Amino acid sequence: MTIIINDITSPQNPLVKLARALDRKKERKETGLFRAEGARLVKEGLDVGWRLHALLFSGAVESRPHIKDLLASCQDPEIKIGRVNDRILESITHRDNAQSVVGIFYQQFSNLDAIIDEDLIVALERPKDPGNLGTIIRTLDSVGGKSIILLEDACDPFSVEAVRSTMGSLFSVKIVKSPIKEFLDWEKQNDFTLVGTSLKAHDLHTKTNMGSRTILLMGNEQSGIDDDLADSCDELIKLPMNGRADSLNLAIATGISLYEIWRQRDFNGKNS
Amino acid sequence: MTIIINDITSPQNPLVKLARALDRKKERKETGLFRAEGARLVKEGLDVGWRLHALLFSGAVESRPHIKDLLASCQDPEIKIGRVNDRILESITHRDNAQSVVGIFYQQFSNLDAIIDEDLIVALERPKDPGNLGTIIRTLDSVGGKSIILLEDACDPFSVEAVRSTMGSLFSVKIVKSPIKEFLDWEKQNDFTLVGTSLKAHDLHTKTNMGSRTILLMGNEQSGIDDDLADSCDELIKLPMNGRADSLNLAIATGISLYEIWRQRDFNGKNS
Repeated sequence: MTIIINDITSPQNPLVKLARALDRKKERKETGLFRAEGARLVKEGLDVGWRLHALLFSGAVESRPHIKDLLASCQDPEIKIGRVNDRILESITHRDNAQSVVGIFYQQFSNLDAIIDEDLIVALERPKDPGNLGTIIRTLDSVGGKSIILLEDACDPFSVEAVRSTMGSLFSVKIVKSPIKEFLDWEKQNDFTLVGTSLKAHDLHTKTNMGSRTILLMGNEQSGIDDDLADSCDELIKLPMNGRADSLNLAIATGISLYEIWRQRDFNGKNS
Repeated sequence: MTIIINDITSPQNPLVKLARALDRKKERKETGLFRAEGARLVKEGLDVGWRLHALLFSGAVESRPHIKDLLASCQDPEIKIGRVNDRILESITHRDNAQSVVGIFYQQFSNLDAIIDEDLIVALERPKDPGNLGTIIRTLDSVGGKSIILLEDACDPFSVEAVRSTMGSLFSVKIVKSPIKEFLDWEKQNDFTLVGTSLKAHDLHTKTNMGSRTILLMGNEQSGIDDDLADSCDELIKLPMNGRADSLNLAIATGISLYEIWRQRDFNGKNS
């Protein structure tokens, strides 16, 4: 089977304009697409079955084995493939020495029913910072978690910054958006243990049993978990603090909590 | 005593130009100054005795109690104080709805001899990302650590992004820059235990005793700890990983390791 590659030389080419436009939330919402940068990331997405809309790559690297491999993975005739120059790639990613590959993928959201059997879930209430969100997805993947729930208005997991921060883990994690009420009904019906982190909590994370079917709930960067939501938690934990610092970065607090949960499970399933 | 406040209306005023110029590494290096944004952050720095060169504040908030407090803390006649408008503040911080206060502080580096008695130190080999560096300083402060060592060429802890990420913890932590050889000689002479994190290590962080006088050594974002440096470590630990993810974000890995060290010390000194 032959892969059709189009040579693109104009920065005004519609595919190039689309790749650039995916910087903006509005364009991502209207098209349902997002941008993933770098051969490794695009390969990761294809390997786990995400649907690719288009691929742009630098003609300068076409002969490299990993680029040949990547192109060979793009057999689906629906995938538009364009050979571009580095200047065009830099105009898309706004970076000097841009990645040599840009993929345009279809966004994929999951739903609560699809993650009913999960053993470890992170739920974030109104996260604001896409770098934090991406880093949390990366860390969740690192402990074997496969699902994240974004409660109410959250920053976009498919923004360029969030995608970059996931370092490929985006493609391994199911992302669910849910209103709080629906989420609470669902978690109660399905016998999850909802563990919220709160500076007002009394129990240390290491002194609280976080066994199977735990949902780790993290509040917003500025205000933490909403009071009503905290009241609905089965457990509230706090991370100890010392000195003048009064809180941890959201992604750090989530990472410490996730590794504590996994420690309590004897790092079950870890890579050798 | 009277505090002299100058009204500044021109974006070309030398103090405003200086505040803006501190975005650039070259200017920070030449002047030995850096910018801290927000009343809370500036107050934090003054409270723990950092030397302030200048303060710019928005006339719109002058009557608020915390701004009055802050101004009252600026009795030193050496401190230049300017009342500006919000447009000028936004031109300095490149943010809409900018903070209402910008402080210009003198940078403060410490040295190895000054941190000989510390019980917990973080050493970073060639960190590249200022957001990571700032977040690590914030986390170190949260576990009661007071010193960080930057080995070889590191990103600037006084860059605007690093300072923002520390959320004020910058002012509570001693920062030392050192070449690797000098650092290794010093840590051996002073009987520290040097614990490096490495994906190639065999021992889990939770199975390794990290008692008193530990230096936690973290490698660079891309390449980890240099082989020679790894050979000099007393212990090498790894954080377990699962699934397709192959590494953690540097600040996350540091945070998890720091909280594990502190857990092994029964969270000694934690705030109630």
